[in-house]
This record gives sequence, C-alpha cells and structure tokens, in this order.
Amino acid sequence: MLNTFGSVFRLTSFGESHGNGIGGVIDGCPSGLELDMDFIQAELDKRKPGSTQAGLAGTNRKEADKVQFLSGVYEGKTTGTSLAFFVENTNQKSQDYSQMVNSYRPGHGDRTYDEKYGFRDPRGGGRASARETVARVVGGAVAQLYLKNVGINVIAYTEALDGIYAKDFGEIDLEQCEKRMFFAPNDAVIPHWQKRIEEVRKDLDTLGGVVSIEAHGVPAGLGEPVFQKLDAYLSYALMGVGAVKAVEIGAGTKAARSRGSQNNDAMYYDGGKLYYRSNNAGGIEGGISNGQPILLKASVKPIPSVAKEQKTVSRQGENITLSIGGRHDICAIPRIVPVLKAMTAIALTDMFLLQKRMGMEKRETVF
Amino acid sequence: MLNTFGSVFRLTSFGESHGNGIGGVIDGCPSGLELDMDFIQAELDKRKPGSTQAGLAGTNRKEADKVQFLSGVYEGKTTGTSLAFFVENTNQKSQDYSQMVNSYRPGHGDRTYDEKYGFRDPRGGGRASARETVARVVGGAVAQLYLKNVGINVIAYTEALDGIYAKDFGEIDLEQCEKRMFFAPNDAVIPHWQKRIEEVRKDLDTLGGVVSIEAHGVPAGLGEPVFQKLDAYLSYALMGVGAVKAVEIGAGTKAARSRGSQNNDAMYYDGGKLYYRSNNAGGIEGGISNGQPILLKASVKPIPSVAKEQKTVSRQGENITLSIGGRHDICAIPRIVPVLKAMTAIALTDMFLLQKRMGMEKRETVF
Amino acid sequence: MLNTFGSVFRLTSFGESHGNGIGGVIDGCPSGLELDMDFIQAELDKRKPGSTQAGLAGTNRKEADKVQFLSGVYEGKTTGTSLAFFVENTNQKSQDYSQMVNSYRPGHGDRTYDEKYGFRDPRGGGRASARETVARVVGGAVAQLYLKNVGINVIAYTEALDGIYAKDFGEIDLEQCEKRMFFAPNDAVIPHWQKRIEEVRKDLDTLGGVVSIEAHGVPAGLGEPVFQKLDAYLSYALMGVGAVKAVEIGAGTKAARSRGSQNNDAMYYDGGKLYYRSNNAGGIEGGISNGQPILLKASVKPIPSVAKEQKTVSRQGENITLSIGGRHDICAIPRIVPVLKAMTAIALTDMFLLQKRMGMEKRETVF
Amino acid sequence: MLNTFGSVFRLTSFGESHGNGIGGVIDGCPSGLELDMDFIQAELDKRKPGSTQAGLAGTNRKEADKVQFLSGVYEGKTTGTSLAFFVENTNQKSQDYSQMVNSYRPGHGDRTYDEKYGFRDPRGGGRASARETVARVVGGAVAQLYLKNVGINVIAYTEALDGIYAKDFGEIDLEQCEKRMFFAPNDAVIPHWQKRIEEVRKDLDTLGGVVSIEAHGVPAGLGEPVFQKLDAYLSYALMGVGAVKAVEIGAGTKAARSRGSQNNDAMYYDGGKLYYRSNNAGGIEGGISNGQPILLKASVKPIPSVAKEQKTVSRQGENITLSIGGRHDICAIPRIVPVLKAMTAIALTDMFLLQKRMGMEKRETVF
Repeated sequence: MLNTFGSVFRLTSFGESHGNGIGGVIDGCPSGLELDMDFIQAELDKRKPGSTQAGLAGTNRKEADKVQFLSGVYEGKTTGTSLAFFVENTNQKSQDYSQMVNSYRPGHGDRTYDEKYGFRDPRGGGRASARETVARVVGGAVAQLYLKNVGINVIAYTEALDGIYAKDFGEIDLEQCEKRMFFAPNDAVIPHWQKRIEEVRKDLDTLGGVVSIEAHGVPAGLGEPVFQKLDAYLSYALMGVGAVKAVEIGAGTKAARSRGSQNNDAMYYDGGKLYYRSNNAGGIEGGISNGQPILLKASVKPIPSVAKEQKTVSRQGENITLSIGGRHDICAIPRIVPVLKAMTAIALTDMFLLQKRMGMEKRETVF
Repeated sequence: MLNTFGSVFRLTSFGESHGNGIGGVIDGCPSGLELDMDFIQAELDKRKPGSTQAGLAGTNRKEADKVQFLSGVYEGKTTGTSLAFFVENTNQKSQDYSQMVNSYRPGHGDRTYDEKYGFRDPRGGGRASARETVARVVGGAVAQLYLKNVGINVIAYTEALDGIYAKDFGEIDLEQCEKRMFFAPNDAVIPHWQKRIEEVRKDLDTLGGVVSIEAHGVPAGLGEPVFQKLDAYLSYALMGVGAVKAVEIGAGTKAARSRGSQNNDAMYYDGGKLYYRSNNAGGIEGGISNGQPILLKASVKPIPSVAKEQKTVSRQGENITLSIGGRHDICAIPRIVPVLKAMTAIALTDMFLLQKRMGMEKRETVF
Repeated sequence: MLNTFGSVFRLTSFGESHGNGIGGVIDGCPSGLELDMDFIQAELDKRKPGSTQAGLAGTNRKEADKVQFLSGVYEGKTTGTSLAFFVENTNQKSQDYSQMVNSYRPGHGDRTYDEKYGFRDPRGGGRASARETVARVVGGAVAQLYLKNVGINVIAYTEALDGIYAKDFGEIDLEQCEKRMFFAPNDAVIPHWQKRIEEVRKDLDTLGGVVSIEAHGVPAGLGEPVFQKLDAYLSYALMGVGAVKAVEIGAGTKAARSRGSQNNDAMYYDGGKLYYRSNNAGGIEGGISNGQPILLKASVKPIPSVAKEQKTVSRQGENITLSIGGRHDICAIPRIVPVLKAMTAIALTDMFLLQKRMGMEKRETVF
Repeated sequence: MLNTFGSVFRLTSFGESHGNGIGGVIDGCPSGLELDMDFIQAELDKRKPGSTQAGLAGTNRKEADKVQFLSGVYEGKTTGTSLAFFVENTNQKSQDYSQMVNSYRPGHGDRTYDEKYGFRDPRGGGRASARETVARVVGGAVAQLYLKNVGINVIAYTEALDGIYAKDFGEIDLEQCEKRMFFAPNDAVIPHWQKRIEEVRKDLDTLGGVVSIEAHGVPAGLGEPVFQKLDAYLSYALMGVGAVKAVEIGAGTKAARSRGSQNNDAMYYDGGKLYYRSNNAGGIEGGISNGQPILLKASVKPIPSVAKEQKTVSRQGENITLSIGGRHDICAIPRIVPVLKAMTAIALTDMFLLQKRMGMEKRETVF
C-alpha cells in the first residue's frame, strides 16, 4: 500500500478504523509555523458525524476525535522536522459490521479488496474505511495554516445535492459556507436539501451531490509544465477521495460544448495591472496557475450502503439479498467536504513548496 | 520541470518543438517484449496533422515523424534495460510563430510560463508545445504492446464534438473507431461533425468535444487503496494532457444526480462466474479495478488559437487585439485521442507492474 | 529534512531527543509477519546506555525505552498496512546540555546545523541527537524478523577498539557475540578493551573502533546493476549513521594493494554445487549478491565530546575553551553496533523486496 | 534496473556496450548554464582507453567517443528542460568477448547477472560493461559546469597504485594532476608506477590502487541530517562505481585508531573569520558540509580479467581453467578517475540544488 501523498510536503498516513487510532507523519513542513491547535481541531470536528454542518445527512455515531502531536513542535511552532500526530479511536464497535463480513456490498470495495489481498479486515473496513480520512483532514489543516501565511485561502462548499443546486435559490456566499448546515453557500437552499434528504431516507435510499472547492490568493506560477501540471495534480488529489467520480477544473465539462472565442479568458490591463474578464480556465493555463482563483468541482456518488433491499453475492459464491442498516450516512456530503478541502490544501502546499524550492527557474538560473 | 511519469514503468520525456527532435527513455519495461515497430509507428501516425483520422479538423502541416530506438532492444526484443527513442524534427518553421512572441495569447500558457520562468522559448512553445506529446504516444505504444501480452486492450474514440454526440446517430462500434475519420464510433455522425466544423471554421472560431477511453481485459486488483487509487492515477494521467478540463470515471458527473440503489452495480453469479448488471463504477471500486471495462471520459476545451479577432495584452503591458492565423488545428480532437489513449496505457502498465511487483500482498504474505 | 529511508520497505522516522518521544512508520512491510515483540524490545535494549553489552564504555543514564505499536498489527501479525510505532522519552533532562548552547563543540554538528538552519534546538540536539537511532533500531528489528523468515541472519560485532583487534586474542566466534560485553567476538579480548577504556577515560579522552556486520543466507541476485548496486546501497545505509568515517566491503581497503589473481574469488563445482574458495568480494559481484555472506566493515571515529579541555569558538565569534562533562559515552561502540546492524537489515529487506517485486526480470519477462 | 541517479539533478542513463551507443537524460539542470562542449568532451576523453593519462595501464582500443546533445540547449545555454545526450558506439567488436560467453569469469558479475536475470547479453557485458560509465562522465561534466558557476571545484587524482603512494615521492600538487599520466599528483611517482605496471603485466596479473577526490569551495550547509547525510550520499555515489571496495571520508579508517582530542578539528576565529586547524572530518560534520574541502578516498580493486590462468566454472557446471586475453586494461585506474570525479560532481550538484531548493530551512521558515 502506498500511504504517502506529496513530494515536498509529504503526508504519510497510518491506522485503521477499528485499531488503536488514526495518525500521520508530515515531513517537509517548513519550520516556524505556528501550529494553531484550535484551528486543526475545528477542521477535524467538521468531518465528525453529528457535527452542525452534517445536518440530517449524517449518522448518530459520536466520535470524540482529539488530535495530539507527537513530534516536530517546540513552544507551539513547527521545528522543520517530521511532524507526527495521532487521533485515538474511542468508539469503534466492530460488531456493527459483523453481519457484512461474508457478503460483497454493491458499490463498496469489498470484492476488489478481496481480489487484491485475499482477505478482508473484519473490523469495519480497516484502511479502506472512510475513517482513514481523519489523517488527511489533520494533514490538510496543517497545510491550510501554512497557506494562510502565504495569503492563500481554501474554501469548500456544497454546490448541489441530488441535482438541487444552491445557486438556483440565492447568491453563492463563500463567507459563511463552512458554518452553515451542509456547508451550504446560502441559507435559502437548506430547507430544500433537508426536504429531499427526508424523502430519500424514507425511500430507504441514498443520494449524491457536487462539491466546489476554491483556492483564493494562489500566485501565478504554480505547477510543472509536462507531467506534474497543477490541474493534473489537484485532480489526483480529489479523485483519490472515495466516492468522487468526476473532477472538473473551471468551466469543466461545459468547455467541451463552448467555442474558443467564448471559452478564452480575455486579459486586459487597467491601471498597470493585468485582469481577466472571466475564469473558464479555473485559474490554470498550460498547467500553471495564473493568479485567478482556482476553481474545482467534485461529483460525489450516492453512498452505496442503502437500507433498501439489494441483490448481491456472498464471498462463497451465492446470490443473496442484502439491506444495510447500521449507523451509516445517507450522503457522503457534507462529511466529505472538509476532506476534499484538506486534499486541495495539501496538494497546493506541496506544489507551492515545490515551486518555491524546485521550480523557480526564474530565480534558479545560474546567473 | 518534472519530465518523468510513472513509478515502475517510467517515461522520461525530452525535446522541444523546434529543437533537434522529441524523445524519451522508458525505464522499467520488462524484458522479452517484442517491439512491434509497425504498431508503434502506426500509433504515432495517428497524431500526425493531416492523418486520415484528422479529417477536416487538422492542419495542413506535414510532419514525417519517424521513431528510432537508441537502446534497450536486442534482436527485436526488449532487454529489460532502459529503452531510449528519438523522433527527429524535420519540418519546424520558427518564423510561423514569430509575430506572437510579444503578445499573450488568451487561453494559452504564454503568460503563466512567463510568470514562472521569466522567459519564453521563441520557437513555437518549446516544451509547452503539443509536439511534446510525440514522446507520450511512443511511450504509450510500448505500454500497449505490453498490455496486449497480458490481455488488456485500450481503445479511444471521439464521443462528441461541440455537443453533437455520436450515440445520437447510431450504435457505438468500438471495432473500427480508430480507423474512422475523427476516431468516430460510427459512420453516421461523421457528416454532422464535418458540417459543424465547416461552420465554425467560417466563423473563424474553434470547438471542443468529449473523448472516451476504455480499457478491456483489466484484471481485478489494480490500484493502491489509500493514495494511489487507480481512478486517481488515471485522472492524473488524463488531466495532465493540455486542453482537458474534466475527467470522469464510469457514470461520472451523472453519479451526483442518481440514487444509491440505481448507481450501485449489482453483482450476481451465473454458472459459477461473477457478473455485474451495470458499470456505473467504470470498472473501479474502492480505488481498485473490479474486472469490468475501465470507462473514462475527458472533456476537451476548444483550441484557444482563434482566427477571430480577440482582445488581449502584450508582454509590455499594452491592451492589444490579436487574430491568430498560421497552420493551427481548429479542434484538439481528433489529434488528442491517441495521446489520451497513450497516457491511459502508460498509467495502466505502471499500475499493472506495480501490482505485479509491489502490491500483490495476496502472494506477498510471509507464509 | 529527509526522514524516510528505503524504496519498498520504507522507514519514516520522527521525534526528538527531548520531546515526547521517538517513533516511526514502516510502510511496505509484507502482511502476515509475526511481530515478535520480545525480539524487537531486546534489540532496542541493546542500544540502551548501561546495557550489559555497553560494559564500561557506556554512560550511566537510565532510559526505559519501551516500544509500542500504534497501527498495522492485528492479532500479533502485520496486516500489510503502515506500521507505526512510538517510544516515549522518559528521562530527558534538558539542563544537562544547557551550558553548551552557545559554544560550537568540535567534531559535532553544532556549527553545521547552525549554518544550515540558523537555529539550534536547545534540547540536547533534537533530531541530530543519537537518540533518533531508536527509530532505526525498531525498524531494523522488524526488518530482521522479515529476513529470518526468508533465511537471512544479520550479525554485528566489534572487531577492534582503539586499534586493539579481537582476532589477535582468539577466534572470531559469531554465535555469542551479541551477548558478550562490547559485542565482542571472543572473551579473550574483553579485558584488553576494558583496560584501554579505563586508561583513555583517565586521560579525559575518547576512542574509536571498527564494527563488522555480516549477513548470512542472502540469496544470489540482490542489487540493481547500474545505480542501486547492493554495495552502494549498504554503504549509504552505514555511512548515514553518525560517527562512521569509512565503509568497506569484503577485502575493502586491502583490495587496493592486492593482485587480481589473489583478489579474485575462484569458483568451483563440488557435488553439483557451486562454491567460492574465498570471499574477498564480500558476497557482492557486479553490484549483485552472489550467495556468499555479505561482509561489511564500518570505521567509527572517537566520540567528539572529550572531558579534556579543548579550544573552540562560541556562536558569537569568540575563541573559547571547553571541557565537556555530563553523562556522555566514551566510545560510540558498542551502542552503535545494533544501529549498524539495524541499518544493514533495513537496506537488505528493502533490496530483497525490490528484487522480489521489481527486479526479478528472470520471472518478469513477458512470456 | 534502476537507471536514474539523483533527486533534483537527475541522470537517467541508457545504452549498451555493443548497441548503438550510450546516452543519458539530465533532468533538473537549471536554465542559463553555458554548456561548454569543449570541457565536456575533454572530460569524456579522459576516460578513453589510450588517453595520455592512461599511460601504460590502458588498453589499445581506440574509441572515438563524441558526445552530442539532443535537447535542452538553446544558443549554447541550457533551457531548464530535460537535457538529452548521446555517444555513438563506433568500435565495438562483439567477437572479442565471444569465447567468454559460457564461462563465469572470477571477480566479474557474470554469475550474479545470470542468477538475477537468467540470461547474459552476449555482446560484451551490455549494461554491466564499464562502457556505461560514459553516461556518468558526461552527466558529471555538466554537473561540474554548474558547480564551477557556484565556485565549487572537484579534483580527482591517483593516490596510490599497488601500495605505492605518490606522497612518498613528492608533494601532492593538485593543479596539474589531471594532466599528468595516471592522474598522478606529482611527477616523481610516475616512473615507479610505470615500473610496477610493467612487472605486473609480465606476471600476467593486474593491480589496484587508491583514488582521492576533493571538492573545494563547497559552502557549509549541504546534506540532510537524518537519512540523506552528505557523506552517506557521496559514499553511495562512489561505491556504485564498479571495482570500488571501500569509501573513506576525511581521516577514514584512521579515525578508528585515533583519540577524540586528536581527531576533533579545532575551530578558531581570526580576523572575524572561522577556521579549522585540521580536516579529519573531511569537510562534513553531522552529515552536513562545514565549508572545508570535502575529502574522499576510494579503494579500487585490481581488474579481475587476468591473463594468468585461473580456475573457474562454466555456465554448464564444469570446473574449467581460463586465461583472459583480449584488449583489457591492467588496472581500473586511471580510467576510473574521471568516473569517480563525475559521480562526486553529480552527487554534490544534486545536494547543492536540494539544499538550495528544499533544505534551506533558514530561508524557508514561514516568517
């Protein structure tokens, strides 16, 4: 298993859903960064089941996830050495999942893990569990602290739930979105989403949606031109989160249906400064950031654990039916939102440091 | 610049659009592979301007791209050592681009390269030129030869041009698609695409489209579960090709609007074999291949070089207008099709060898 | 800082000498390995100050180093996922080192760290402390458990102390060396070493020595022929341990004074099996293991912290004198012995798995 | 096979001794470096059989090695993109080696390659041939051009041949060493070496020696403190050259027999500048350069191809005798000297750029 993400700012993740806990080691974090523990814990709280933002979509499980740093910090600041952290598992009941051990749940990785490894961790998915994302959110919170210092701000919000788009009910307001229920970008859409969730829950079904992630303040120049283009790398980061089935940059799929003269973002100078008239590029041209906001979209599939009866198969090769109860979410959104934000922040920090350290040919020319 | 792709099967690319030529080194290719030069040259010919498949979308430039291997081959077979190849540049006229040197073309990487490197190669884009993809196509052809040996077949075709979908005019026929004009999946759509291209050309504009890439015969078990998921890696490979603005796996963006009970691919046993009733997952569950065809889609933006007059800026900070003549394509499709196919083949070969060599925990357990 | 060693079997180390503790994450350890905690703890105990093997060379500090695994183990066996461990610091008095903060101790990294980082951790060296090797010894113990399973045994012993060679006093007996004082390869040399240590201690000085590391049972075929030759990699592993100033393979420096006809290890067949008449190659030919024991030697410099008064400089640029008291060792040997053994074991495990997974072209040819 | 060396300044080597030629790709070379082709060719000429420096030790083969760059250069300067080069093979007679195909030559990698790969390239060793070092010498020459720009000069000379030390016959004079026969550091030793070589040649035997490599002008601060220490990395670079059996830094093996008070390099300030009274550390303390010259030594074994009759075995398992004629060198020195210099230059450039780009925590702290 490849448990490390990043080339300069590197997160190595460890831990299982039903073991001692989840942790990670961040290597390559610059020294002197103030490690704001309240911010880190607050980011981690956002992915908790039952958080305010989870609204009615979440489960009732209570997880008291408290992050603790084991190394790399001195008097509240990073020392530039490896930064290890740990989040203890306090409320993991293996038995909840026990009945699923011998069936392959549709839409999960049950069968593919079995094909790959020849065994399945009987304890709630092990490394395949969404609980592994705890390490990503902590790593992403550290990355965000670094990015804030260099003027970059990453924001994530729910754009649509089951085809209901927030923008059809009001303005997109980024200021408060991470405090609203569902990480909604306006208040008006919330009752519509609540109503739909209730309906789907009654149907014993689940639903998906679209998450937008934006990064403001990214300077021009991030991204390597041939194989580590900024858009390719961000796509790798987001598509690596379970349940994501599509990643779009800027105009995304719409670009395929527009003309060059429309899709191009015209530039102009005003008062000696360069501006763009649009942002169909999503802040990235030729694989390199252009100084405009980075705009990303992730399409999130419905949670595959439906209470409705499904036809499937057992490990032993029988055709069976299955209805999945237990304490599952009905939608990966909103809990996936802080995870997608975290991965964006980690990837941007890595590319920022790579640019700062490796790619600045402008400053790295010999003379 | 990071000019290497892959971790086990690694392609290092070199060369510039107006230098001596374009080449690459493939490290990690298994020994004993018969290097079918006709196949490799044929793949390379598909991305040539003026190829049959290019139809009316392509330019009139003639490029006699002939690939030559410099090492790693003995009596027609790979030796397992590094495989170097070179394609000479024979028809590169620098002057064609000379007038553009001092303007920032909208939608291109002109300004971002300038921001990053502080200079621009005056010779037609240098490494940023689409000509760099010659190395990818050769690398991808070698990868395809390997994949064929293990029963994997990669196919790519044009799904839509400017919103005109091939499936609305006839069945999707994969057999002949790489031989048809535009890499079209049926004959019926071709006149509609031709007509649209003519209209857009008269408008002095350009257009985009959607490319589908499928991989058949991929065994279950490819992909690393945490950070190097197969879908994340393929997404990285495709989004790293210039002009791609969205990557979708399986149901893609549609997954965000469907219910769990619909989106799940039900499994069943028949005659002792396991089947799926659908393939919304696109052949990947939990980041690992499940044995179904891998289904990928790339949304390709319109070519930014439009003949129509555009407002833009000069390097010196003036507001100017620009209309781009020269020998440019009107659409990145179909020439981008063999490139997307190549990157898919390289990424799959890399993951296949990684699985074979690193990830086979099933066979790698101590006892 | 680059805190990861290895490409397939990877150890990421974290922690500081005066922080919470020292730990690590091992990624790439095969699943199903029985994690013999008694063995791991015993290896760790060997590097403890005041251990039996330390004899009179060690300090009087008591460190109750207890290793605890945080992830990757289920029912006493590795699961193939990342294996995190932690050793708490229980007896770290920062004040012991406080007087040294403003002086550059000769022979230490004080000045070079200051040049590189612009600050020094005031708490006993931080990551530069020899205490960091705790992570290496735990990592090496896990590696040894893996190697034992495949029939490889790593042994390390003290060959010489201050020019007094064990072989001049008796046979080299590998069986018991790790149980004897100083990891001595025979009993006869021990009193001579004890006497010399006493003399040097009275002189307020320190001394060095030579450590031999042997690996038995290594199959032929490990090592990559061009840049990751087995001898190059082992050399990297050993020279990366503080205090090592020379690494020799097989005949080592003697090879430079011998003739080809003497230095070549003649091969012969007996009863259908191939044997070598000598082992000047140290088990490695052309960068690849040949099935004979791997023979390595590390020259260890005297500990630079001498009680004798030394001339040196302060951080502020004054010429000063310094005599270093405190609870320091008089010789890096024998405490360095388990560290060198550990690094050899980690490097061999990494190369063994690389060979098993990546390099087996013999089995990896296409047909 | 792992054919890439370096992490920031990366050399990928390709080619075989009896194929089309030998080449490489350098990725990560900063832009704007003047590519002095005369210097590069001159470095390459130094490793040629029959060069002035080779004296009587070399073979009579004539190799007209001419290096040609394929990419990455514009108007004589590097562009910062991948730099590919190629050296054609012009005088490779396969038949010279044909009689050796079925015997395992003692001291060569014949048997280990066979064990690892199950086949041997019948054409003079393939990648295992010393001819592969052509790529290293070209890569090292480019590295030296970069180092010169930042004030670093790498010098290599022959310290001893068959136990005859140059320093016993005159001063070590670094100025002219690369122009003298055998890369001798003074004129006086040359006749003694010539005489010994003649004797050994008459004996149908071969001999070894010691090479010194020094790097002057290396600033303090290079090297990563935990796993990529500068001494560890240089050791990896040198031990990766065939025939090297020991690597020493500074006092090397002598450090094991000296006392702390002697071995420590005392520091003092004079006129506001810091000086060291000795250089037993070889310019590296705590794994980090201290600003003094880097001093390295490599012990080179005698060439295993002796004309004298040797007992050995055939691939088929018979005991045979063998005497190796052909056009072989009698000593790896002096042809190995430019190779060791090249590897030192590559490793230093890589660490310099890593420090400049990744490790400068001093400048990389957040505030």
